Amino acid sequence: MINRIGERTLELTRKPRVVGFGSAAGKKEGEGPLAKWFDKIFTDTTMGGETWEKAEAALQKTALSLALENAGLENSDVGLIFAGDLLNQCTSSSYGLRDFGIPFLGQYGACSTMAQTLAMASILVESGAADTAAAVTSSHFCSAERQFRYPLQYGGQRTPTAQWTVTGSGSAIVAAYGNGEFLGSGSKLTQCSDMNLKRQIGAAHVCIGKIIDMGITDANNMGAAMAGAAADTIYRYLCDTSTKPEDYDMIVTGDLGKVGTDILYELLSKENVSIEKQHSDCGLLIFDCDEQDVHAGGSGCGCSASVLCSYIMKRMRKRELNSVLFAATGALMSPTIVQQGESIPGISHIVHLVNCTD
Amino acid sequence: MINRIGERTLELTRKPRVVGFGSAAGKKEGEGPLAKWFDKIFTDTTMGGETWEKAEAALQKTALSLALENAGLENSDVGLIFAGDLLNQCTSSSYGLRDFGIPFLGQYGACSTMAQTLAMASILVESGAADTAAAVTSSHFCSAERQFRYPLQYGGQRTPTAQWTVTGSGSAIVAAYGNGEFLGSGSKLTQCSDMNLKRQIGAAHVCIGKIIDMGITDANNMGAAMAGAAADTIYRYLCDTSTKPEDYDMIVTGDLGKVGTDILYELLSKENVSIEKQHSDCGLLIFDCDEQDVHAGGSGCGCSASVLCSYIMKRMRKRELNSVLFAATGALMSPTIVQQGESIPGISHIVHLVNCTD
Repeated sequence: MINRIGERTLELTRKPRVVGFGSAAGKKEGEGPLAKWFDKIFTDTTMGGETWEKAEAALQKTALSLALENAGLENSDVGLIFAGDLLNQCTSSSYGLRDFGIPFLGQYGACSTMAQTLAMASILVESGAADTAAAVTSSHFCSAERQFRYPLQYGGQRTPTAQWTVTGSGSAIVAAYGNGEFLGSGSKLTQCSDMNLKRQIGAAHVCIGKIIDMGITDANNMGAAMAGAAADTIYRYLCDTSTKPEDYDMIVTGDLGKVGTDILYELLSKENVSIEKQHSDCGLLIFDCDEQDVHAGGSGCGCSASVLCSYIMKRMRKRELNSVLFAATGALMSPTIVQQGESIPGISHIVHLVNCTD
Repeated sequence: MINRIGERTLELTRKPRVVGFGSAAGKKEGEGPLAKWFDKIFTDTTMGGETWEKAEAALQKTALSLALENAGLENSDVGLIFAGDLLNQCTSSSYGLRDFGIPFLGQYGACSTMAQTLAMASILVESGAADTAAAVTSSHFCSAERQFRYPLQYGGQRTPTAQWTVTGSGSAIVAAYGNGEFLGSGSKLTQCSDMNLKRQIGAAHVCIGKIIDMGITDANNMGAAMAGAAADTIYRYLCDTSTKPEDYDMIVTGDLGKVGTDILYELLSKENVSIEKQHSDCGLLIFDCDEQDVHAGGSGCGCSASVLCSYIMKRMRKRELNSVLFAATGALMSPTIVQQGESIPGISHIVHLVNCTD
């Protein structure tokens, strides 16, 4: 059942379960601090293919396949896919996933897309619309850079506030659960040997964000453009649920990087909220900013997706983390309209993941 | 409640109600056969603004405002917006709707987006995740043409299979209904003078489509790229619900145009299904193809959105139509990846709208 709490938080009372997840990352990500957590690391930027766009599609295909394998499910067990990415027309989602034969709903939330797809998958599963649903997203440094900024060959100087788009993808499979067993097509999970692991991570709450525009017009300062949305959704979620930051093991934003993180702390401090102790940012976790020369940190939907579906979920399964607020953040940035003088609106959605004992 | 029927159709048992809708269209559409049905017709392609992209954002803002007015609701009564469009990064949705202050979920289904947003709004309302949700989408001939094909100034020749992107937008507001009254924030509708009208149109069923690739590589033949998806979803829906085409007053596809419509009939005839008598296509309804020189018909998310949220819904309110299968169709076409030699996958989702008597 779905209960509404406060202004805009949803409680998913049966806590649909994350029964499988998978991650794929590129070479630079594979040289960073989270290398050992990724399921697969590609060292070739085109993944043996012809173009970066096709490579990004292959990343999504890989992540979803890994997640299905991890869940012990087949394509036909999954009722819905929610997927999106940064490429125009969400190309890597539609091309990467067209062969799976699963009903498909394209999502666009810029770098917040992992939270959006996971939120939608969780809500639809809890509502009974599907027994099992998949969430997938990706980004690729090379395809993003040439689409949003300059051709790579141009060798443009990067500003100190710039972030490095992560080459990576993450996918999670959510299954309906209730009264001690998986429901419907997910019921084969009830018989599986590691059922305890499969039913462990649940999606307890979701909070859908509003578009927040901080008036930022610098396409090389995404962190600042997204910080307001992160602050708005996190603050709203804490109010709606009457919880405090210390009630969570981790509050993890998508890809605010150094600049956006500082602004987030400042904005929340005005509301007397301090999340410094619990907070991590996927964009700062995935790279060693100084050693890897990524300036303000990592970014892209693949950043929070690959970190969530490796480092965070694996640590949850180990019970090192038991309650995580996943607040991916997106800058709804369009080169066309920014060139027309418009500012960059941000958005952030939250999925609250918990280790379940039922 | 949401019941699953057959392979992938969802029955929304309480039939969430379309309590308001609005449409806005451009000059050429305002000279076509449906002119009298649109709520607002703009004769200036930039709508008094600076650019076509900003004009398209203004179209969405107008359509949503008209729908809210038609419903007699305010921004704060709406719990969620599902919106999308054809522009890169779904620009006209995020910029057109950022000031409404409503939790926002960007959708990308190319020209199928109106069915996708209406399906999601209906499912989420039925699930209890929101009392009221809005669906919005748009397209604009000038912004689409320069993004997907050539600069307008180039004056490229159009092929006979080419379709004309509609300048228009449509929006519908869906509210939760049960036991003879509107629920939650929609409850003010129960007290309104035209409650009978507000509770009339209900979303009875939804069918989410799979990605179907027909191998079409011609970016000027969208109808052919989408026809397979339309055939797949319509056939699946009829099987799932054990219904026949003659059970519906109208089966309306999004924007297959002349070419796609012919292919749809051919594909369905292989399954011994004939929809010719009930079928209309929004792309053929909105323009007089010969008189208005639009070749194979209209297209764009704004095509099916503006036709649904004017001509179709107004005729439903008049009870000229009582049961309509709305099957918007999308070509998940990316100029970048088509230039890389890839074919164009299609997708189609169905929302079954009925006049309710409860």
